[in-house]
Amino acid sequence: LGSSKVLWDTVAIVGVGLIGGSLGQALRERKLVRQIVGIGRRRSSLRLAKSRGAVDRTSLSVRTGVTEADLVVVCTPVQMIAEQVLEACTFAPPHAVVTDTGSTKREIVATVERHGGGRLRFVGAHPLAGSERAGPEHARADLFEGRLCVLTPTGRTESEALRAVQRLWRSVGARTCVLDPEQHDRLLAYTSHAPHVIAIALMRGLAEEAEPFVASGFLDTTRIAAGLPDLWVPIVAQNRDAILGAVDRFLKELDQLRDAISHYDVAQLRRIWSEAAQRRARLGRVSNQQGRRKQQPPDA
Amino acid sequence: LGSSKVLWDTVAIVGVGLIGGSLGQALRERKLVRQIVGIGRRRSSLRLAKSRGAVDRTSLSVRTGVTEADLVVVCTPVQMIAEQVLEACTFAPPHAVVTDTGSTKREIVATVERHGGGRLRFVGAHPLAGSERAGPEHARADLFEGRLCVLTPTGRTESEALRAVQRLWRSVGARTCVLDPEQHDRLLAYTSHAPHVIAIALMRGLAEEAEPFVASGFLDTTRIAAGLPDLWVPIVAQNRDAILGAVDRFLKELDQLRDAISHYDVAQLRRIWSEAAQRRARLGRVSNQQGRRKQQPPDA
Repeated sequence: LGSSKVLWDTVAIVGVGLIGGSLGQALRERKLVRQIVGIGRRRSSLRLAKSRGAVDRTSLSVRTGVTEADLVVVCTPVQMIAEQVLEACTFAPPHAVVTDTGSTKREIVATVERHGGGRLRFVGAHPLAGSERAGPEHARADLFEGRLCVLTPTGRTESEALRAVQRLWRSVGARTCVLDPEQHDRLLAYTSHAPHVIAIALMRGLAEEAEPFVASGFLDTTRIAAGLPDLWVPIVAQNRDAILGAVDRFLKELDQLRDAISHYDVAQLRRIWSEAAQRRARLGRVSNQQGRRKQQPPDA
Repeated sequence: LGSSKVLWDTVAIVGVGLIGGSLGQALRERKLVRQIVGIGRRRSSLRLAKSRGAVDRTSLSVRTGVTEADLVVVCTPVQMIAEQVLEACTFAPPHAVVTDTGSTKREIVATVERHGGGRLRFVGAHPLAGSERAGPEHARADLFEGRLCVLTPTGRTESEALRAVQRLWRSVGARTCVLDPEQHDRLLAYTSHAPHVIAIALMRGLAEEAEPFVASGFLDTTRIAAGLPDLWVPIVAQNRDAILGAVDRFLKELDQLRDAISHYDVAQLRRIWSEAAQRRARLGRVSNQQGRRKQQPPDA
């Protein structure tokens, strides 16, 4: 899982929260980089990231933080990514590779391509790892181990840049695969974005007097509803149509279930329930972790 | 958490799956009972329960299994409970107390009262503990520790029987509270039954090609969808109206969210999301576990 020879001299991480902080810790722990520059807007987060071993140096601006970088990884909320990627492309050395970790890809990649010139040293990426807990205080060097990282190169992406970003994620224990930006957003609407919306509705639909009777089932089902609105509302806005499509497909299924329940159609209910229970059991506990997953995405 | 003096000479447990098996293990481990009789229809389950230390003796019939019992606990799927409770009331010694662990209470309690004579030594109960994994092989002596057990006595319940069932659940580490059977079913529709229905719909709505991109968020959100249809379809049938009510309240919330998303109403989306995220964070990780819960239900 990744050699321990130094792969980069200088890596700049823009945004040192859960994802950026974990990436910094993973790279430093495995001694894959000589120095990491942490870039952020708040001194307190940068201090915390440094004290937790995620970064060696810190900077309050992308412009000055990336000047020595061989690799820039933008790990900020999705609505900030495209602009910071373009800034990094402008101020990093010409050989530098730039990537991101945003949960949406279509709009970010399109914006970067619209403003970014011809061939690009930028590769969109999305490691499928995270938590409802944000901030450098929750960062963990093993966050990406066994997880899948989706890369979204386009016809304009330099192949050398794609290889560098593959190397990055594999070096911290992740698997990689390649999707179109649009395909990524459509699939992630099903597996992540729409479930977040549904968990929020489930949380809001809980009658107040029922709260004391909540048990582990409800809590697991709504865990992702605790995600920060500052991170999630922009994701929803950037992937609106795919999310609405996935929500509507869910609503069609719920409607069918609701009909079977209201007509006491036990045979139909049993058929619907059995198929879903079997499919869920097949997915396993953490299907995108190496060694446990049942389905293999196309490797990058 | 429960003294270790012997509280009962003979306890009969009807149904030695996850709940019955865990209760037997908990009672034996704490030496709260001289002997436990396990009652079930399948020899293989009874053998497994005995080999795992959940029961001392076994019987294939309620009629013969309860003849010496001071306490009978019916832990079978909800559609079987009322009949087995009535059978236990008929064939157990006159001083015996009978209780159950079903996830619904209204129909079970009403059926027992309709056929059960005047004052009743039966108390409906529902320990809020469990798992999507069924069977004696998943039983654990600590399953009920720190969990809440809802008791549903009525005006016809002998107060001595209520005290005995309180003692049972407290002796294995649970807290107890009292609700009307109807109130129990209405509240559990919100916290457990409707979330199961929604998780099933979410599982069915997942596009097949998205499966490889499922991560821990989706898996947690749909964990309860792996519950056995044989256990869950009868629960849904017995609590139809309350479940439809909770599903409709959820649908109203989802509709509001869907509107905000489709109109790009970011301010509204942020307000909805923030309220839900804060409420979810307040509920904590496992709110019905002792020491972590924020809201206290009325104690029994």
